Amino acid sequence: MPDSIPAAQLLRPGVFITFEGGDGTGKSTQVRRLVDRLTRAGIVTVPTREPGGTRQAERIRHLLLQRDSGSFDPLSEALLLFAARREHLVSLIEPALARGEWVVSDRFADSTRAFQGYGMGLDGAVIEQLYRLVAGSRVPDLTFIFDIDPEVGLARSGKQKAARADTEEGTEDRYELMGVSFQQRLREGFLAIAKAEPQRCVLIDASLPIDAVEQLVAAEIDKRFGVAVASIEQVTA
Amino acid sequence: MPDSIPAAQLLRPGVFITFEGGDGTGKSTQVRRLVDRLTRAGIVTVPTREPGGTRQAERIRHLLLQRDSGSFDPLSEALLLFAARREHLVSLIEPALARGEWVVSDRFADSTRAFQGYGMGLDGAVIEQLYRLVAGSRVPDLTFIFDIDPEVGLARSGKQKAARADTEEGTEDRYELMGVSFQQRLREGFLAIAKAEPQRCVLIDASLPIDAVEQLVAAEIDKRFGVAVASIEQVTA
Repeated sequence: MPDSIPAAQLLRPGVFITFEGGDGTGKSTQVRRLVDRLTRAGIVTVPTREPGGTRQAERIRHLLLQRDSGSFDPLSEALLLFAARREHLVSLIEPALARGEWVVSDRFADSTRAFQGYGMGLDGAVIEQLYRLVAGSRVPDLTFIFDIDPEVGLARSGKQKAARADTEEGTEDRYELMGVSFQQRLREGFLAIAKAEPQRCVLIDASLPIDAVEQLVAAEIDKRFGVAVASIEQVTA
Repeated sequence: MPDSIPAAQLLRPGVFITFEGGDGTGKSTQVRRLVDRLTRAGIVTVPTREPGGTRQAERIRHLLLQRDSGSFDPLSEALLLFAARREHLVSLIEPALARGEWVVSDRFADSTRAFQGYGMGLDGAVIEQLYRLVAGSRVPDLTFIFDIDPEVGLARSGKQKAARADTEEGTEDRYELMGVSFQQRLREGFLAIAKAEPQRCVLIDASLPIDAVEQLVAAEIDKRFGVAVASIEQVTA
């Protein structure tokens, strides 16, 4: 066994945590903060995102999110997302979990359920069929679902984008252009997922201050996995 | 009804014909020749290809076939191919058939069955599940399966590529690099498909001279669809 794996980590399998929610909910910030806390607690943690996370999956992300990408049929879009997810699982998530590491992903399959399913009307049964095909029995050990009023979220993410001057990708753009009613369906989708899987999903009120959300997330991690990350002093701004 | 649809075409639905087979079998040449004959017979015919055929599907093709593309997991590859196929069906094939036109495609789903299934070992049941998802009950009305000894095919396609100086895409390259044993599995796959669906599939001996193959294809079209393309004088070189 390689010396580089801490003994504590060999005692338990890896942990797979996902962050989900609409645009402008502050997920990405909280992914960074949690990864920072876990790392400082001595847990080898792999931060990642969807669509993407591996070279091949990021190429599929680029295909989907280029500004001039035009539109795909919702089923084609789901197939592309599950192709990226397959790469992500096979090349990054499963190997990391097998090494006993923690994987924290900014979006995973619930986003497909919410965006392509609730948002774009693709049959949920088709999405579950594709899920089983690419992921088998693998499900996240814990999913934080960030909930916010779409009007507030859209205003926030507009400000974030202006600050990032993100010209290459139209990530959230594409969906924001679908308007508030689309974002409202998304929100309902995420709430329905949280309600259907209360063991896996924890609903987070994303309208709370960033530091308060960070504490909520850390406290949940401590409670679920018997670690101690909530008491670690905050260093990230 | 638009005046541009010939009266004869309104009497019957469109016809969907596919050409399949390994590399260097001369499929593409025969697609062009058949389309030429059909067009001269007054039949509105749409030549197309897979992966690709529409703007969005060609983008997926590019993702799969770029020379530096690296490798995908076989299931990811199948998902990408079926995403491209979905676009092809929704945006090109189904609308053309609904207008009563003929669609002639250089490759379709049998290539996924042969390459990803027989060649790369992906479970055939998974491929059929994806097929039903994206194509429903749509199947080609007729499929020509071009059969050739892999050694002969590889030598031929090597010459074709040198002539084309095709630097952007590594289409056949990628599979040729898998060697003769891969090409042999491909051939067995195509032969198995032809045997399993004798109504849909016609096996063509691709080692015959090009003009002889053209006559075989044209005669089969006349027999199946009651048209008269075999007697049209050959103009393409």
